[in-house]
Amino acid sequence: MKIKSTLLALSLCLSFAAQADNAPKNIIFMIGDGMGPTYTTAYRFYKDDPATKDIETTVFDRILVGMSRTSPAKVDGYITDSAAAATAMATGVKTYNGAIGVDEHKHPVETLFEKAKAKGKATGVAVTSQVNHATPASFLAHNEYRRNYVEIAKAYLDSDADVILGGGQKYFSKDLVNQFKSKGYRYLDNINKLDSVKSGKVLGLFANVQLPWVVNEPKAHKLSQMTQKALELLSQDKKGFVLLVEGSLIDWAGHNNDIVTAMGEMDEFARSIKVAEQFVKQHPDTLLVVTADHSTGGLTVGANGKKAWHPEVLRNVKASPDRIASKLNTVKKWQPELTSLLGFEPNKHEWNALKKARAQGESEFTDEIKRIIDIRSNTGWTTGSHTAMDVQVFAFGKGYKKFIGSQDNTDLAKKLESFL
Amino acid sequence: MKIKSTLLALSLCLSFAAQADNAPKNIIFMIGDGMGPTYTTAYRFYKDDPATKDIETTVFDRILVGMSRTSPAKVDGYITDSAAAATAMATGVKTYNGAIGVDEHKHPVETLFEKAKAKGKATGVAVTSQVNHATPASFLAHNEYRRNYVEIAKAYLDSDADVILGGGQKYFSKDLVNQFKSKGYRYLDNINKLDSVKSGKVLGLFANVQLPWVVNEPKAHKLSQMTQKALELLSQDKKGFVLLVEGSLIDWAGHNNDIVTAMGEMDEFARSIKVAEQFVKQHPDTLLVVTADHSTGGLTVGANGKKAWHPEVLRNVKASPDRIASKLNTVKKWQPELTSLLGFEPNKHEWNALKKARAQGESEFTDEIKRIIDIRSNTGWTTGSHTAMDVQVFAFGKGYKKFIGSQDNTDLAKKLESFL
Repeated sequence: MKIKSTLLALSLCLSFAAQADNAPKNIIFMIGDGMGPTYTTAYRFYKDDPATKDIETTVFDRILVGMSRTSPAKVDGYITDSAAAATAMATGVKTYNGAIGVDEHKHPVETLFEKAKAKGKATGVAVTSQVNHATPASFLAHNEYRRNYVEIAKAYLDSDADVILGGGQKYFSKDLVNQFKSKGYRYLDNINKLDSVKSGKVLGLFANVQLPWVVNEPKAHKLSQMTQKALELLSQDKKGFVLLVEGSLIDWAGHNNDIVTAMGEMDEFARSIKVAEQFVKQHPDTLLVVTADHSTGGLTVGANGKKAWHPEVLRNVKASPDRIASKLNTVKKWQPELTSLLGFEPNKHEWNALKKARAQGESEFTDEIKRIIDIRSNTGWTTGSHTAMDVQVFAFGKGYKKFIGSQDNTDLAKKLESFL
Repeated sequence: MKIKSTLLALSLCLSFAAQADNAPKNIIFMIGDGMGPTYTTAYRFYKDDPATKDIETTVFDRILVGMSRTSPAKVDGYITDSAAAATAMATGVKTYNGAIGVDEHKHPVETLFEKAKAKGKATGVAVTSQVNHATPASFLAHNEYRRNYVEIAKAYLDSDADVILGGGQKYFSKDLVNQFKSKGYRYLDNINKLDSVKSGKVLGLFANVQLPWVVNEPKAHKLSQMTQKALELLSQDKKGFVLLVEGSLIDWAGHNNDIVTAMGEMDEFARSIKVAEQFVKQHPDTLLVVTADHSTGGLTVGANGKKAWHPEVLRNVKASPDRIASKLNTVKKWQPELTSLLGFEPNKHEWNALKKARAQGESEFTDEIKRIIDIRSNTGWTTGSHTAMDVQVFAFGKGYKKFIGSQDNTDLAKKLESFL
């Protein structure tokens, strides 16, 4: 028995040793912006089938391998923003909050994408924010400040990225779009046209700024569709590719302390990870790494002294609180529709608060809807900003073992670059 | 080059394969009660040397391998208590909150410790709560309700555990202690006597209920001392041992929303892990697994819309807020001493709030001190109870690879039992 299992271990090791020196040809790097560990736990409960005895696991549970430490350069203390974190993950260098692909002294640092290009690989991004937002920008541009959106959009021209998909029409003038076209890009302003692209470079901007909340168009599945298309296009490069996919709006929902919307964004991000996971299974020379840049909102699953969380409340809400408020703010018979959209009938105390808030304005009405959902689901928040908490690292496919354990976010870049 | 590295991988694999079938002889299982991932991140910042460019890593970072899913049996929803979580980790069975070593139907389930005993191994616990508190109790007893402290203490007589160290004199009558003595236990009521024990069974109860907060006796190092002694005693068993060490009061500080005290408890727990880590290095046939049962307090590192956390505030506080309040509640010239104990001079607004709270009573005074520390350090809390968030799993030594990735807390028991 002992000899048999030793031989088995040996033969497994031999097959492992045979590939030990092989780097993956393709890298899919996925970032859930603001997706701290409370989000993935909350998402598991949100997806749980109440009819079964067990809590079903998610794609995150399937491929968890470690965690990442996210602080920016010490000049900015312990809590990072998306720009410093993305720059760390794109370049391996700690920098100040707000920095896009530049170091503490505002000097450009070569990115994973630039190194991939130098090796003849294709590169691409697919995100749910504007394409020139902090996370993708740190892989595709160098700028001393994340909010220089127009400069960053222009810099994308020089990135030579093959696939750029997301929102952000506002930042790409007609002239800039024409320059992309001159460089051989096909330009799309509607995601329905994405299917028609079969090869070549593509710039697809599907919203003025960010894409709509997933919870308001639950059947659109835009991020997973963009991920699928990006993989189809990039995998035509014989030397391989590096793709960045970002679930950008998890963070935005977190800033809004909006648990319903956050869970919707998580769901589409998880769906996109499954698309990538499927690609890896079909193309075993691919590495998939998923992580977050920081946690947002100080979300806690459970609050207010009660050992309980009620995701069933969230599952029944049919639109984002801001959409509900904007829709019902001027309608006369708003109460039956609110009950229908919330999926529950507010009690007397809640109706009173809702009426009062609605009279104050749309923003107050939105806040009151969120407050009631938080109380009913027993969800906690401590901030409209970010918190420092190590984030999870998930990896699957060729080379995934490099990501086991605790690592700095700069190590993620270094490990990925070691494969180029 | 390729051949060389392949050969290297092969030879590493051969040496691994040679031990592949070998289970560790000794198991050290350590639980930080309430120690969710925010606690280990906060602790890293708390220990950070501000004079260096990098944030120094901790023992937790060194041995992180995965995470654990902690929900109790579905009858109790998504958020566990310490009893259900410890029963899961001791028996591999999900149960209701409050259950001590029994399943959902209140039937006793064989524990890791009982299985170890059946294999001739020694067993022991070293904790900072009363020894018959929920976590150790779930390894050493079977009871339908965690608060049946006297019954649980009596049940310890039948556990045949070799080392029982912690607090809890209150629950062990003179008669019960005599019964332990008749069974061959040496009884100690003072930790200073621990050094004199060189072999044999020992029951050491060093406080009426829980041990004092670490922050109030920073040089005592009781948990690490108990861990060291437990290892010395248990390792005399030729068939090996299973030791449970619990940093019990991390959770209690979390329930109090007391970040200063929580960091003190974390520090001593980390010190105890280092003792265990050292033992593993010297006894490579040992496995060390460290985890938590749940997170407590909804702690967030950063809060109130500010992207900042200030551990320097915490490092300077010289006693726990409850100790400070009790000490200064009746002293006339309390203000200079408060400044000295806090390590900062409160501003005018803070003095006013402190004066008002102190006039209301000791509990209000304690709360106000904590509130000021939270605001200055920018620490957030959402509850006096537990939250659901996957907790980390750390492992080191023989067999550690089994714990890589995401696992249910019941899997921890199953994996450990597979080694017996």
